[in-house]
Amino acid sequence: MLPNGVSYADRFSGISGSAIREIFKVLARPGIVSFAGGNPSDDALPNELCAELASDVLLKDGKRILQYGATEGYPPFLESLQAYLNESYDFPAEKQNILPLTGSTQGVDLLCKAFLNPGDTVLTEDPTFLGNMQTLRVNQQKLVPVESDDDGLRIDALETAVKRHRPKALYCIPNFQNPTGRTLKADRRKAIAGMAGEYGFLVMEDDPYRDLRYEGQPQPSVKHFDESGHVVYMGSFSKLVSPGMRVGYMVAHEDIIRKCTIGKQGTDLHTPLLTQAIIDQFLRRKLLMPHLHSILGPYRGKLHAMLGELATFPEGTDYTKPEGGLFVFCALPEGINATKCFEEAVERGVAYVPGTYFYPEGGHHNTFRLNFSNSSLEQIHSGMGILRELFQPK
Amino acid sequence: MLPNGVSYADRFSGISGSAIREIFKVLARPGIVSFAGGNPSDDALPNELCAELASDVLLKDGKRILQYGATEGYPPFLESLQAYLNESYDFPAEKQNILPLTGSTQGVDLLCKAFLNPGDTVLTEDPTFLGNMQTLRVNQQKLVPVESDDDGLRIDALETAVKRHRPKALYCIPNFQNPTGRTLKADRRKAIAGMAGEYGFLVMEDDPYRDLRYEGQPQPSVKHFDESGHVVYMGSFSKLVSPGMRVGYMVAHEDIIRKCTIGKQGTDLHTPLLTQAIIDQFLRRKLLMPHLHSILGPYRGKLHAMLGELATFPEGTDYTKPEGGLFVFCALPEGINATKCFEEAVERGVAYVPGTYFYPEGGHHNTFRLNFSNSSLEQIHSGMGILRELFQPK
Repeated sequence: MLPNGVSYADRFSGISGSAIREIFKVLARPGIVSFAGGNPSDDALPNELCAELASDVLLKDGKRILQYGATEGYPPFLESLQAYLNESYDFPAEKQNILPLTGSTQGVDLLCKAFLNPGDTVLTEDPTFLGNMQTLRVNQQKLVPVESDDDGLRIDALETAVKRHRPKALYCIPNFQNPTGRTLKADRRKAIAGMAGEYGFLVMEDDPYRDLRYEGQPQPSVKHFDESGHVVYMGSFSKLVSPGMRVGYMVAHEDIIRKCTIGKQGTDLHTPLLTQAIIDQFLRRKLLMPHLHSILGPYRGKLHAMLGELATFPEGTDYTKPEGGLFVFCALPEGINATKCFEEAVERGVAYVPGTYFYPEGGHHNTFRLNFSNSSLEQIHSGMGILRELFQPK
Repeated sequence: MLPNGVSYADRFSGISGSAIREIFKVLARPGIVSFAGGNPSDDALPNELCAELASDVLLKDGKRILQYGATEGYPPFLESLQAYLNESYDFPAEKQNILPLTGSTQGVDLLCKAFLNPGDTVLTEDPTFLGNMQTLRVNQQKLVPVESDDDGLRIDALETAVKRHRPKALYCIPNFQNPTGRTLKADRRKAIAGMAGEYGFLVMEDDPYRDLRYEGQPQPSVKHFDESGHVVYMGSFSKLVSPGMRVGYMVAHEDIIRKCTIGKQGTDLHTPLLTQAIIDQFLRRKLLMPHLHSILGPYRGKLHAMLGELATFPEGTDYTKPEGGLFVFCALPEGINATKCFEEAVERGVAYVPGTYFYPEGGHHNTFRLNFSNSSLEQIHSGMGILRELFQPK
């Protein structure tokens, strides 16, 4: 119970914490096979290399790294990040267009803070990433899900929603979406950028999985088609190097970056410099691509193993076939309730995330999300075997 | 100019960024003597030791440190922080009362987010720390300054303000306050805790300077007198080890911590684990106290040098005589305008922060804040000589 006279802010009414974070706690149980998180494989975390890099940067530039830094970012990181973006991405990025973040979720939070009022509408894919759904809700945005199909957000549905709801922003994950694994088709990306300029809303393009592509061709970013400055691109090193370091970034119109910088002053002042300096070394020493290549093979194998298992699931089970990322999304035949089965699954030693949590309006209890990156092939086979049994029609 | 249809959120109207952060940029100018920041001395930043610790923790526990962590904190750090608090502080702290933060300013932001609505009143000292003034303002709190004297916040003025404004919170820095360097008297601390319980408002006790005491006796914390759960204690390792690492923490009533944890999920998910792990090593290996002792002597010498210089300033110059911390606050004879003189001071090679920025209602243009930690004795003598000249009555 709260101390007398103290009460929750209005923005916290109905906010009970991320379901997925609570699920994470269940997973501490030893021996459990977890398809629940979005964690990279432990094998993919380069801790020995990071030890060397951390020591190096602290010896060579430690006085600057341990001192207060600018909210705008650690200067060497800003430099190497800009070079990396210009080399590997399909949109222009000057230094004044870039803001390093303490994880890319911070970008969504700062955009809400600086540009959205309580009650403003934000459109999302349906389903969408539950973490940022919470971020948007704490900022009192009204979420309106837009129908999506195998090629991502439907443009006809988007246009209808834009006209009806006059949104201030669209939040979307164009590559290997969380939770579905779907990739947005290129022509739809172009249409989204055009519509944002025409109707005047921000596009929060959340793109943490882009480089985890196991097959198919890379697609142009939404930002690539942005002629009017409405698209805010958010990237992250969480899936490529380390989520525990919390290093992401935002690329946007200069005036958007400036206001988000002011917002960031009032939260964490700046992203820790040591973690920025370590990622800087990954970029500067060209360590990112070799590291990435070392993880793509194993992840591809795990995805295929999981899809192979799903092919033997009860008739009527539907599931996505992602070309990359970390997730497969499944729909069981109507009548099988993945939300209710969750406890029993954990009892039997396997965890997933019930799909309902990813739908802004709930429902869809026959769906669930599977992560394949953080399990061994053996765990994928055994865990999926247990789920196949569990989901047999009675 | 912003893209069409995009506009600033209401909470950003009138927010133009921290004046002090803009001042920092001026200071990049080579050769300038800066009394402006709140930076630790570069000598006080243990970069070689941190290099060793960073490498150690990444080799020994790197898979956990690079992986996603719990919002509640890196478990070893939570453990050593709790032990440190119970050993060195005068209030009880169980694990569920502690939340690691990405710098202690994040604590103020999270408290606003979870417990304060736009338009709610927050009382502050007068003057007060401008960084958190901005944090409170972006959260649309109404700031009401409460008269302070050499012993800190005046209790009679506080009681009047509490009755008149029915505040939801009081923000205060009890030890070596920023910007004044003043320390709140023990009996006033007790009165504040009592009043918070009686009238039902939160006390945000911001205490980053506590251990930088050069003389006099330590005072009990406000939290020590907290019988009702209204006092939220915020500590930081920024002034003790490194501000660039951004590691702080909050100690509060369990239900307050729980809601702030949910708020933190939606911003940076968790504080980077590597920086938590490095501070953990400082605590666990008992490195904090020896390091602290190595910096106290030089800081004491610098404070005395600055006070010695101030004694020779034009008649009518008033200034605080802090027992610790990083700042001295000065008031020039009426008619000398420290705000207007700032540009000329920078021209002559010295920077400070005009005092007006620290007053929620502005004014007080004859005042300014001096930092002594980040200059050498030589710079203090030469820089103060320049200011003495500049502030001579014409």
